[in-house]
Amino acid sequence: MNSTVTAKDLVGELAGCVPQGQVLSDTDSVRKYSHDDAEWAPFTTPLAVVLAQTTAEVAAVVSYASSHGLRVVPRGAGTGLSGGANSVTNCIVVSLELMTRILEINTDESLAVAEAGVINDDLREAVAAKGLWYPPDPASYKISTLGGNAATNAGGICCVKYGVTGDYVLGLTVVLPDGEIVHLGRRTAKGVTGYDLTSLLVGSEGTLGIITEVTVKLLPMSGREDRAVIGFFPSLQSAGQAVATVAASGIVPAALELIDSMCLRAVDEWLGLELPQDVHALLLAKVDEPGTTGAELANRVATIFSDSGGTNIEQATDPKEIDRLFLARRMAYPALERLGPVLTEDVCVPRSAVPEMLSRIQSSAAKNQVVIANIAHAGDGNLHPLIIAPVGDVAAVARAKTAFDEIVDACRELGGTVTGEHGVGLLKLPGAAAELEQGVINLHRSIKKALDPRGTLNPGKAFPHQP
Amino acid sequence: MNSTVTAKDLVGELAGCVPQGQVLSDTDSVRKYSHDDAEWAPFTTPLAVVLAQTTAEVAAVVSYASSHGLRVVPRGAGTGLSGGANSVTNCIVVSLELMTRILEINTDESLAVAEAGVINDDLREAVAAKGLWYPPDPASYKISTLGGNAATNAGGICCVKYGVTGDYVLGLTVVLPDGEIVHLGRRTAKGVTGYDLTSLLVGSEGTLGIITEVTVKLLPMSGREDRAVIGFFPSLQSAGQAVATVAASGIVPAALELIDSMCLRAVDEWLGLELPQDVHALLLAKVDEPGTTGAELANRVATIFSDSGGTNIEQATDPKEIDRLFLARRMAYPALERLGPVLTEDVCVPRSAVPEMLSRIQSSAAKNQVVIANIAHAGDGNLHPLIIAPVGDVAAVARAKTAFDEIVDACRELGGTVTGEHGVGLLKLPGAAAELEQGVINLHRSIKKALDPRGTLNPGKAFPHQP
Repeated sequence: MNSTVTAKDLVGELAGCVPQGQVLSDTDSVRKYSHDDAEWAPFTTPLAVVLAQTTAEVAAVVSYASSHGLRVVPRGAGTGLSGGANSVTNCIVVSLELMTRILEINTDESLAVAEAGVINDDLREAVAAKGLWYPPDPASYKISTLGGNAATNAGGICCVKYGVTGDYVLGLTVVLPDGEIVHLGRRTAKGVTGYDLTSLLVGSEGTLGIITEVTVKLLPMSGREDRAVIGFFPSLQSAGQAVATVAASGIVPAALELIDSMCLRAVDEWLGLELPQDVHALLLAKVDEPGTTGAELANRVATIFSDSGGTNIEQATDPKEIDRLFLARRMAYPALERLGPVLTEDVCVPRSAVPEMLSRIQSSAAKNQVVIANIAHAGDGNLHPLIIAPVGDVAAVARAKTAFDEIVDACRELGGTVTGEHGVGLLKLPGAAAELEQGVINLHRSIKKALDPRGTLNPGKAFPHQP
Repeated sequence: MNSTVTAKDLVGELAGCVPQGQVLSDTDSVRKYSHDDAEWAPFTTPLAVVLAQTTAEVAAVVSYASSHGLRVVPRGAGTGLSGGANSVTNCIVVSLELMTRILEINTDESLAVAEAGVINDDLREAVAAKGLWYPPDPASYKISTLGGNAATNAGGICCVKYGVTGDYVLGLTVVLPDGEIVHLGRRTAKGVTGYDLTSLLVGSEGTLGIITEVTVKLLPMSGREDRAVIGFFPSLQSAGQAVATVAASGIVPAALELIDSMCLRAVDEWLGLELPQDVHALLLAKVDEPGTTGAELANRVATIFSDSGGTNIEQATDPKEIDRLFLARRMAYPALERLGPVLTEDVCVPRSAVPEMLSRIQSSAAKNQVVIANIAHAGDGNLHPLIIAPVGDVAAVARAKTAFDEIVDACRELGGTVTGEHGVGLLKLPGAAAELEQGVINLHRSIKKALDPRGTLNPGKAFPHQP
């Protein structure tokens, strides 16, 4: 099949599915929509890109693709880090970025209904204006979409206390692989009618259906008072000990983040942090209990930090001061990107294995002569080793890939999972194949085949498809 | 097929799957294991009952049944209220009640691993001894099993703040319909490798697999201080208003229960409550924030109760005093059972629809001349109308069934779901058929057929199987 002709014909055909101007096939557009933010994950060039504005338009395109043997790759903001939105052979990319309407904010029921293209932070601000809180806070919250968050079951910093995206999804509007529109889940606080298909779709990376609307649970905005506690540590091990002690003490912090010396130096060189001497890790904690309870908890965290060898411990309650203390966390990623393209790892190990996992990452970096910095949602055991490979240095990239694989192996050896919050996409398919039992992989295949017999939606992603 | 011969042959065959003494086929045993606690749900007599002691034994029995065209009905403690454990034609009941080992309590990772037959309260006590808390608290917590809780995604009183069973299930050991053993989920705090099959199995009522072990997340025991607030109300509407105001105020209570006048009178006649005059509803709230924060919240709840027309408002912090205030809640069900067999309804409506739903229940009771009392997890909108039909009064039972159907219809009209926490089983199949879109029912059928093509496991339960 000649792809030029096909693409041209296809644009004409798709014009029957969506209004003029919403089908893109020019070189720049198909290139722009050909992949997400995953370094190294393979991608092709889509036949066309559709900017859908309604669920019915998504359904029309999927129905067309299904009946013509084409594939559909759904896409939110393209901020994914595993290649879940990367284009595949013979695919139409359906972008939901124009579906940005917040359809309902219900203060009586503490829920909101929004289209899939709504930016996470836009929903957060809209519900905050009505005294409500949408907790899920992936690092990309200012640019990523609710649909993408749901499709990948995105995590974030507050997960350690408040859970992940899936914990807030009550219901979904979904376009199935044949183009049928269904509504899953509920609007009530509880409900067990039938299988939990909402949770099956959440995190399925668009392989079973395209999420076009989400109904999310909200919490009250009131009743919380943020307090930050930070401390610098002489070793990753001492920082890891502090994390373990916080967990064992019965304190559930609202955030507990770790930044290693590599990150700290990168930020320091860029912004001038005036770091204390001999620093190998920074821990940043938040507690959000109000009043004296919160103050006591913050003091206990500070004491644990100190007892574990932490120095330069500071506390803050003023939002601006908290922002200042969390500066290194916020700037770590851009500071590292100044050093070269960053491959973001995403492994999650039992909390008690965090120090050992950090040691193994250091060993792998040394052995393979690559630069690996670490940001970690330490309270969850969710580590993001950031592997930096200089542009054009083929040998360094090869060594970085070796380190990537070693880290995934080490995580599994320590009882961990190969992706804590970014998803399998394409990048973690080998890791998923190693992690999941054959019987469990077979369950995935059976479900995919039952719901998408033609393999229309996002084929080859999310779990190992080939034996 | 002659069932007597079949049963005898079967016992011999099953002796190859499990040790002697674990296969029951005497009349008393098969009768005892023929149904759960659902009044009115149909049941048959099982061919045999197996008291499994290991996952391997469950697998052997399922494998045998699958290859011989028999059905398997899994069963925990048989406390279900929807007929999910009721025997079906040509079935072996596999009881997990002997699988009572708590395999691990991990304080570092805040998780526990337990066999499916462990009683909810036994796990609660065991983890409490290590400073940890297992929140899910179905009313049956002293007699129901973790496996049954997971298979039905059981709710309870603390759900309004702490969520349902599924919110605590990290992983499962499952026997699939062909007898294969798989391990789903994870032991880490986060993880998104592949589909969320754990959530698919939770609440699937044994139709996709038999849960033999559960890995559950635990919370710290410390950091909470219970405070109870109760108030009597002159009408269901004023009590409903108080519930709505609590929700809108940004307070998330740890419990918010409603008991109507019918329940109150039943308890009063039995135990002598010395009720205030003109009382039509009792609200019982708990808050569990520690220290001054908790005291302030309890005072705010008391003020809301008072402003909504509540009288005789009391607060308590002493555990014994809290028990005394919650006496009517604890004794409501046994007090009603003294009046006749109780059919427990389980509908969940949007919180704001609770007063209207209570009105409709009252109307239906009056119209059909049946006695209906109400216990409600009011903070969740989850109502348990308790329909009492005198033994042997055929006409009254028929009217009670009419009322049952009317309540289910009313719940759907108000945007609710036909089962908030008890499950579909057999009893709510018509309601589920009315609630679920045809496309969603088709998804259920596709998944069931893909994972259990022979229809071995608990056929006909959990969702409408027939078009």
